Formats: sequence, structure tokens, C-alpha cells
Amino acid sequence: MAHPFASIALIGNSADVRVAECMLSLARHLAARAVRILVEGSVDLPFPGDAVQRCPAQSFVNEAKLIIAIGGDGTLLRATRLVAGHDVPLLGVNRGRLGFLTDVGARSMLDDVDTVLDGHYSEDPRAMLSANLERPDGEVLASLALNDVVLQKRETGRMLDFETVINGNLVNTHGSDGLVVATATGSTAYALSCGGPIVEPDLDVWVLAPICPHTLSDRPVIVSGRSKITLRLIERPSARALVACDGETLGEMDLNDRLHVEKAAARITLLHPPGYDYYRVLRSKLHWGSGGFEIRATD
Amino acid sequence: MAHPFASIALIGNSADVRVAECMLSLARHLAARAVRILVEGSVDLPFPGDAVQRCPAQSFVNEAKLIIAIGGDGTLLRATRLVAGHDVPLLGVNRGRLGFLTDVGARSMLDDVDTVLDGHYSEDPRAMLSANLERPDGEVLASLALNDVVLQKRETGRMLDFETVINGNLVNTHGSDGLVVATATGSTAYALSCGGPIVEPDLDVWVLAPICPHTLSDRPVIVSGRSKITLRLIERPSARALVACDGETLGEMDLNDRLHVEKAAARITLLHPPGYDYYRVLRSKLHWGSGGFEIRATD
Amino acid sequence: MAHPFASIALIGNSADVRVAECMLSLARHLAARAVRILVEGSVDLPFPGDAVQRCPAQSFVNEAKLIIAIGGDGTLLRATRLVAGHDVPLLGVNRGRLGFLTDVGARSMLDDVDTVLDGHYSEDPRAMLSANLERPDGEVLASLALNDVVLQKRETGRMLDFETVINGNLVNTHGSDGLVVATATGSTAYALSCGGPIVEPDLDVWVLAPICPHTLSDRPVIVSGRSKITLRLIERPSARALVACDGETLGEMDLNDRLHVEKAAARITLLHPPGYDYYRVLRSKLHWGSGGFEIRATD
Amino acid sequence: MAHPFASIALIGNSADVRVAECMLSLARHLAARAVRILVEGSVDLPFPGDAVQRCPAQSFVNEAKLIIAIGGDGTLLRATRLVAGHDVPLLGVNRGRLGFLTDVGARSMLDDVDTVLDGHYSEDPRAMLSANLERPDGEVLASLALNDVVLQKRETGRMLDFETVINGNLVNTHGSDGLVVATATGSTAYALSCGGPIVEPDLDVWVLAPICPHTLSDRPVIVSGRSKITLRLIERPSARALVACDGETLGEMDLNDRLHVEKAAARITLLHPPGYDYYRVLRSKLHWGSGGFEIRATD
Repeated sequence: MAHPFASIALIGNSADVRVAECMLSLARHLAARAVRILVEGSVDLPFPGDAVQRCPAQSFVNEAKLIIAIGGDGTLLRATRLVAGHDVPLLGVNRGRLGFLTDVGARSMLDDVDTVLDGHYSEDPRAMLSANLERPDGEVLASLALNDVVLQKRETGRMLDFETVINGNLVNTHGSDGLVVATATGSTAYALSCGGPIVEPDLDVWVLAPICPHTLSDRPVIVSGRSKITLRLIERPSARALVACDGETLGEMDLNDRLHVEKAAARITLLHPPGYDYYRVLRSKLHWGSGGFEIRATD
Repeated sequence: MAHPFASIALIGNSADVRVAECMLSLARHLAARAVRILVEGSVDLPFPGDAVQRCPAQSFVNEAKLIIAIGGDGTLLRATRLVAGHDVPLLGVNRGRLGFLTDVGARSMLDDVDTVLDGHYSEDPRAMLSANLERPDGEVLASLALNDVVLQKRETGRMLDFETVINGNLVNTHGSDGLVVATATGSTAYALSCGGPIVEPDLDVWVLAPICPHTLSDRPVIVSGRSKITLRLIERPSARALVACDGETLGEMDLNDRLHVEKAAARITLLHPPGYDYYRVLRSKLHWGSGGFEIRATD
Repeated sequence: MAHPFASIALIGNSADVRVAECMLSLARHLAARAVRILVEGSVDLPFPGDAVQRCPAQSFVNEAKLIIAIGGDGTLLRATRLVAGHDVPLLGVNRGRLGFLTDVGARSMLDDVDTVLDGHYSEDPRAMLSANLERPDGEVLASLALNDVVLQKRETGRMLDFETVINGNLVNTHGSDGLVVATATGSTAYALSCGGPIVEPDLDVWVLAPICPHTLSDRPVIVSGRSKITLRLIERPSARALVACDGETLGEMDLNDRLHVEKAAARITLLHPPGYDYYRVLRSKLHWGSGGFEIRATD
Repeated sequence: MAHPFASIALIGNSADVRVAECMLSLARHLAARAVRILVEGSVDLPFPGDAVQRCPAQSFVNEAKLIIAIGGDGTLLRATRLVAGHDVPLLGVNRGRLGFLTDVGARSMLDDVDTVLDGHYSEDPRAMLSANLERPDGEVLASLALNDVVLQKRETGRMLDFETVINGNLVNTHGSDGLVVATATGSTAYALSCGGPIVEPDLDVWVLAPICPHTLSDRPVIVSGRSKITLRLIERPSARALVACDGETLGEMDLNDRLHVEKAAARITLLHPPGYDYYRVLRSKLHWGSGGFEIRATD
């Protein structure tokens, strides 16, 4: 067996029937190729024989040479948290419509995995953000994000007043529902809903997209990937804020806290079967082009 | 024959194969029901027997009790110009994907037409705009619009400065590529591309949507359908502007001209087979709901 | 004394120095005109003599013929909740920059109030929304809103899936941070931050503006003021939602609750000194026109 | 005289009274410092003595060590076309409100110029775009742009169908009024009106912003500054398009033409007096922060 992927971990929500089918089919296929297969203990599926071993997801990076995430982009984000800072690549298999990150379809899955095992794939490294929420007493809550670090209001009906500083220089004082700091990867996630642009995934930039800003000229800003971004709240009696990384709560943010966001030392590597084309994924996901809907009367 | 549609005119671009097929099939079907059929002289199709008569499109309103427009929303807009001010309703048949105005599909066309001929349909009256471009010497160019009256720049790279006045009161001084004054019907056409909202078709309001405005707070405005809107250009050396009604040029607009836009006396009536649902059309056209694309990582 | 405003209540946050100055100055002025003045017990200011009486804000509608709200639009919203359903008009005095609702400036305040007391004013009735949050057990939480009824997510990073129904017909299935149902009055508040249009205040329509929608074609919709709007959540494990009326929490919304929004029987009446011009307020608030900022290189 | 700017060209529209005053005042000041001053022959102002020489603008780059552009950003764009590809820096003086590029105000002009002449300034190199409009017969129309290369429709009411290709790979098929390809510098010009983001001026990226796109998901895209972008029209009977560079028409574009856009070999260098802060200019131009307008009721 010539390929470098002697052991492969499968991750996915096996309670989803389509995911379960993919996992079983994939496990059978990999077992036939003598690949050692790892799954979490919580995956309750009738895998054949003894090719499949259970181990905690946290051990995947030590035991596996590749992690295959089966599901949507959310499952891949979960896998991302496991591999960040380790040298284990990810392959995303979608059990329904293709995702931005899970670009292998269920139908071509076995062929695509074979192609990858045969050594035909491209590596697609993706930068991550590091978020540090610093308390006045010196405590720091830290996390990584592949898509975005989000500051958002907690209290209904009141907007958040806060300040954005880059490398020590004031950028803006915002009144809004919050701010999304997105990677290029995350530009097609929450930031896009906030009016941000699509960013080619290998560009070394971040998107700063205010959420429902009070001031209509408070537009998304593209900043250097070397920026050290600091956010702090501005006094307002009922201000209550949350910080989330890739949709997972990091912690509440108070008036004297500081949120520092910058490029993480860790990054992840996605594998793609040959022929991967970022713009083809975009066209498909966003209904671009002649197959899309048409709004104006033109014929 | 009990239905009130003893004679029906068919309008469409017969050079489009799918349109031609629909026209032929429909003509055969109507002939079998003893309906007198009218088409323009330019329609060169092998209609059967002598059920089909040629006459100029301008005579349709005198000769026909119903006009069926076959094609896209653009064909229906052309039919609109024929019937405005006359008491002849329109039925729109789409030869491809459904349009906002052409909501009868090619597949269900014969059944739907039968249902209408049997007297089962809803009437959907739509308001129109009247545009009057008034020259300093008193000359007036006039037209009607079902979707929109558009003031737009002609000269590349230079924006247009102009003023909007409603009922004699200044609304705003704009710097932009122009302004769309849209009916509720037209809210899903050009105005939507300019950031305007979708407006329920029976509301008595207009949308004023600036085109690529210079000032980010120059947002679309919803005004009363009773408004008398006047636009005039503001001096700028190279200002050159055009006025278009439903995409057809009305004329160039110069510095001393005035463009008056208000509700037209004429309106048109669309017929729909039973079960017409405006929001269903929207959901289909705009890929809304669970069948649409998804942007955020959520699973 | 010929004017109908024999007793006037003043409402404002007297902890704000500028508001306190306005209240004192206004009280002195009204006392000199023999007007009976009412303030809340919490207003701790050195009013002269015995012209000023304390009473609970809830009694203002019984005791006063006019309520003057001093502060920003938020103070006027508070006054709105007092007068809704009663026949007591509101006058808004701004202690800083003019608001959309508080259109009397601090500098012209005494003159403007005199003009109103002399019977020179226009009445500007504003429609309100009624929100009813209905629990499965039949309990109903109810409130009114002058600006907006907002459904919004509570849980970070997860969007809300919900359905909008009008008069029993499905409009759309949304994935977003929530939805703003705004009055024409509220079109320049939260709904504007969500991409909604500006709506002339006397139009009988509502704005339905999704908050950061997942689907880019999920645009604001203008619906009839006679619409009966119902929102319900769609199952998603961690869905948690809140309903707020004019920024005040009405309650949490759960999977089996229904939120009903429609025109309230009650409305309020704003008084304006002569010369009030809605578009002048807009131009000033939104930096429209020649005094605004300019973005494009044009000279 | 220690400074390197022994000869300085002044450029501006002297028909504008404020520009004329600045030019005269600046000429007197520079003459007193023994600087040789160059102006175009068309500048008809009573300059003192013989310090000022006339020469064609095209010779400025040979004769002057610095060009000072007096006026708005448009005047600086004109100066840009003179210096592109030459080693002569630009200083922008605004005769009214500050511009994005003309960041020296009329009031501080003499002090700021002295500071620069004394050698205290920062150099701010800005990338430019090269546009080549290639005809089927091999003819090529070429131009440079500091802000943007724009493809736009010429014919009213009809949108443009075209294709964007980067480095030989299809990006998208668009239906819209056109496309703005903007530099980081141009991100605050036309592209911003089209919904594009603000881009820090030293980032090596371009903004591709569709103009009023037909498909709502056809959003601005940030691409690498090394991209070779090609646009071509797609057949539609009445398609007529124009290409403009920084607002100046390069030529009409026909169905078989190709528009190639990529980074120009030439760039320009702006000089700034000490203390230049890009975000301060943004905050001022876009009314950001606490001094800006407020939309929501918050107090």
C-alpha cells in the first residue's frame, strides 16, 4: 500500500441517516484497501469485521494520517478544531448538497477517496484566526476560528457600542449588533450575510463586517492578515456582549475586557481531489450564472 | 360557447422555437374550441386551417377579448403597451421558467387556458406609471410603464446630479447613476437590483430607488401612489441623461427638462388561473426557503 | 388662556444635564403661562414655586392634555407607551441633534411651544403594531410598538429558522438572525440597518426585514397594513429566540409559540410646530444632499 | 536649499476661485523658497515676478521633482495620468473638504508644504490597473487606472451579459449594468457605491464589484493582485458596452472584443505630511463614529 494514509479517522453525526450510510459505505471501502479506520465511541453503526477502532476524537490527530469529515460545513468546522496545530489534513464529504468546505459529493465519494489514496490531490492550506478575550484580572479565554470571530450583542433591542483598533490605531467607533472578523474562508459564511464580499481563500486578508450597523456608511473593511485587531466595548448602561468562534461561544464580554484577534500560528490543510475549482463551488452554491434565477424582465 | 373570450390574440417572439411551439399548440387548441385567433403579420408559423387571422398588434385591443402573451416578462411588457387604457385583459404564458408576470407554465398551458375559458380565473389589476418628459419649449414626450420609469446617466464615468421633488416639496439631491421609480409590480425588476424592497403588487405605493448612489445613506424610499414626482438635473458640465419606460427609451433628458412621474389613468388586468399565489411565485423565482442555497455553516 | 393644553406633562431622563436644563427652562416658561405642569416623582429638579406637580407617569394620560418628551427618540418611545390608546398627543423636544420623532430643537423650544399653545400646529397620527406572543397553553403576552416588533435569535452563532405567514398564506421560510416587522415610523430605525427602505410615515404598510439572512435573495418585503402576520419557529435543536417591541423584551419565544403581529387599535398623535417637513428631517439625519459626504472622485 | 524638490509643478482647475487662490498663495510661498514653479499654459493667474514658468502638462514629469494637485480627487486622478511610470511623486491639496487622495487641507497647506520641503513626509505607493481592450483584428486600446476599470452598458434598459475569467478559469457569468474592477485605492470610489468593501490601500488585491446585478447573490469578490482578469460580452441582440478607466472612456466594447485587466507595471507615489492616518480620513469622509448620524432610537 503506497499511499500515506495508513489510518484514517471518520467524523460525522451518525444520527443523520445519510451521514450514517456514507460512513458505512466508506468504512467498508477503506477496510477493503487495508486502511485502519478510527471513529468516535459515540458512532453506533454496524461496521463490518474489526477494521474499525473506537477512540476519542481528541486522539485522532495522534492516530490518524487523515480525517474525513462527513456531513455539512459544520461537521468540518468541528474536525477543524481537532486538527488545528497538528499535521493531519482534512477531506470533507457532503451527504447532501456540496458545501464550501465539503466539496466531495456522496455519489463520487468512493472514487474520489480512491483518487486521493492513490496520491492524486491538491493541498489547500487555510489560515485561522486566534481570539483572546482578556479580562481585567489578566485571565484570558482563547480559541481558534476557521471562519470567524464574532462580537455580538446579547441584550435585545439595544445595540452595542464598541471600538475597533488595528495595530494600536483607531479604525472606527461602531454602533451595531456586533462585528464579524472573518477569514477568507469565512467570507462566504456569516460575513456574507452582513454584506461582506467573497474573498479568494488564499488571500492574506481579513474581513471586518459590522452586523446591522446604525450608521449606513459603516461598511465592511478588508484589512491585512498581519493586523492585530483589538475590540473594546464603550460604556452604555445595558451593554452585554458575547464572543463566538465559528459559532461556538467563547465567553461574555464586559466593559473592561479586550478582545484580541490575529492570525493563528496554526492552520489547517484541506485535501481536494483533482479538478477542484473554487469558483465552480461558488457558482453552484450561489446559483450564479445562466442556471440561476432572473429578476429583471429581459425577454 | 359560454366564455367571454370569443376572440383571443396571441403575442410572442415566434423566432424562439419554444415560443413557436407554444403558439402552435395553443392555436390548435383554441381553434378546436371555436375561438377566433389573432396574430401579428410577422408571426410566420404553419397554423392549421383558417382559424388564425393576421392583424397589426395595434388592432388587438379592438378585435380581441383577451391577449395571451407567450414568452418571458419582456413579452408581457410589450403586450402591456398594447392594452393599457383598454379593457382587454392579459394572460402570460412562460415558455421556460415562470416569470413574475407570466405565471402560466408551458406544460400546464392548455389546461390552464381551458380553466380560464371556463370562467375560472382571478383578475389582478395592476397600476401603471405615466412619465412626461417636458422640454423648455413646451414639447412633452409621454409614455406609460408597468414596471418602472428610469432616469439614468448616459455618459461613462460621470455620475448624474439631480433633484427629486414630490408634490412640490424637495425630497433629496442625489449624486448617482440615476433613479428608478418603480410600481409595486416593478419592485421585483430593476429596482430590486438597486437595493429596493419587494412590494406586494396591490399596494398603492411607488419605490424610488437610487442607482449606485454616491452617498451611502441615499436609500430607497417608499412613497404614496398619489405622489406627483418631478425630477430635474442639476448643472454639471458633462451631464447627459436618458429616460426609459419599462426598458424602452423615452428620450434624452437635458438640464432644463423636467420629468414628471405619477399614476397613469390607465391600468392593466392580468388573469390568473385559480390558485395563483404571489408569494409562491416569489419563493420559486428567488430560490427562497428550504430548497434554496445555504450560505452559513449550520450542520 | 385660549389653548387646549391647560395641563402638560413633561417626561425625560433628568439625570442627563441637557435634558434637566430643558425641563427647568420649559417648566418656568409654562408656569408663566399658567399651565399646570406634571412630572414623575423621580424627576429631582429645583422647579420654581408650586406650578409643578408630581404624579406617576401612568396617570399622565388622565391628568394632562399634552405630553412633552424631552430627550432622544428613545424617550419619545417611552412616552408612546403611556399614551397609546388615549387621546393625549405628544410633542418631542430634542436636547441634542434632532431625532426622527423629536423634531423640536432645544434652541427653538420655547418659541415652538408657544406656537403650539397658540393653536398653531399640525397633527401627525402614527399607526402602531400590536404583538401577541401566544403560548401552547393559551397564555398570551401582548405589547404595542410604534417602531417595530422584532424576532431575534438568543443563542450565539446559530441562526434562527422560522416561517412567516400572512393572512394564513405562507410567505417564506427564513434562516437568519431574526426578522424586523416595522411600521412606516420604524422604517428609519432598526429596519433601515437591516437593509429596509425608508417609508413615508402616513403609508398604511409594514416593512418585513430579515436580519442578516442566510439566503441573499431574502430581501425586505413591503406588505399591507391590514396584514395579519404570524411567525413560528422551525425545529432546530438549539433554537432560542426573543421577541422585542420597540427594543423592550416581550418574552422568549419557543418552538410551539406563535407570534401574531397586526395593526393595533391604538395609535398616537405627534404634534409638530408649523413648517414640519418629513423630508427635511430625513435630509438632516441622513446627511443627504450637497452638504453630505462624497465618495466618488468627481472634481 | 536642502530639499530635493527644486522644481515643482502645480496642477488644478484655475477657473475654480478656491483653486485659483490656493495656486496663487502656494506659488508666492514656493517662490519665496526659491523653488522653480511650473504650470500649464492654460492657467491664467497673476503670478508674481518670473518664478512661474509655463509648460505643457506632459512635460511636468521631465521638468518637475514633485507635482502638487490642487482641487478634488478628480484633479489628482488627472495628475496621476501624467506621472504614471515616472518617478515623480504627487501631493494632493484639497480646496474644500478633504478627499481620499487630496489629504492636505487648504488652511494648513503652506505649513504642510514646508514640512514636506523640509524632508518630513511619508511615501505612499499606490498600485495601478492596466486595461487592454483587444479587438478581433488585433488592435488594442490601452490605458491605466488608479481607481478603477469599468465595463458598463451603453444601451438603456437592457442589461449586459458578460463573463469574467481569471487566469483562464471562469469566475462567473453576469447579468448586470456592468462590472467595476477597482484597486484598493478605488475601493472608496465607484466600487463602494456598488456594494463593495473598503480595502486598506496597501493590500495587493482587486475588488470585482458587479453594478446592479440581476442575480442577488452576484456579490463583490476580492481577488489577488496577481490576477489576469478577462471580460467578454455574451451574445444578446442589443448589447452595447463601454470601457472606462478612472471615469475616462477607453472605448466601446463589442461582442468579439476582450478586455484584459491586470496590475500595471507603473505605479504612483503619494506624499503625505507626517501624521497621515488612512482611517482618520475614512472616519471623516464617511461620517463614522460618534460625530456621525444616528438612525436607531437609542436614548
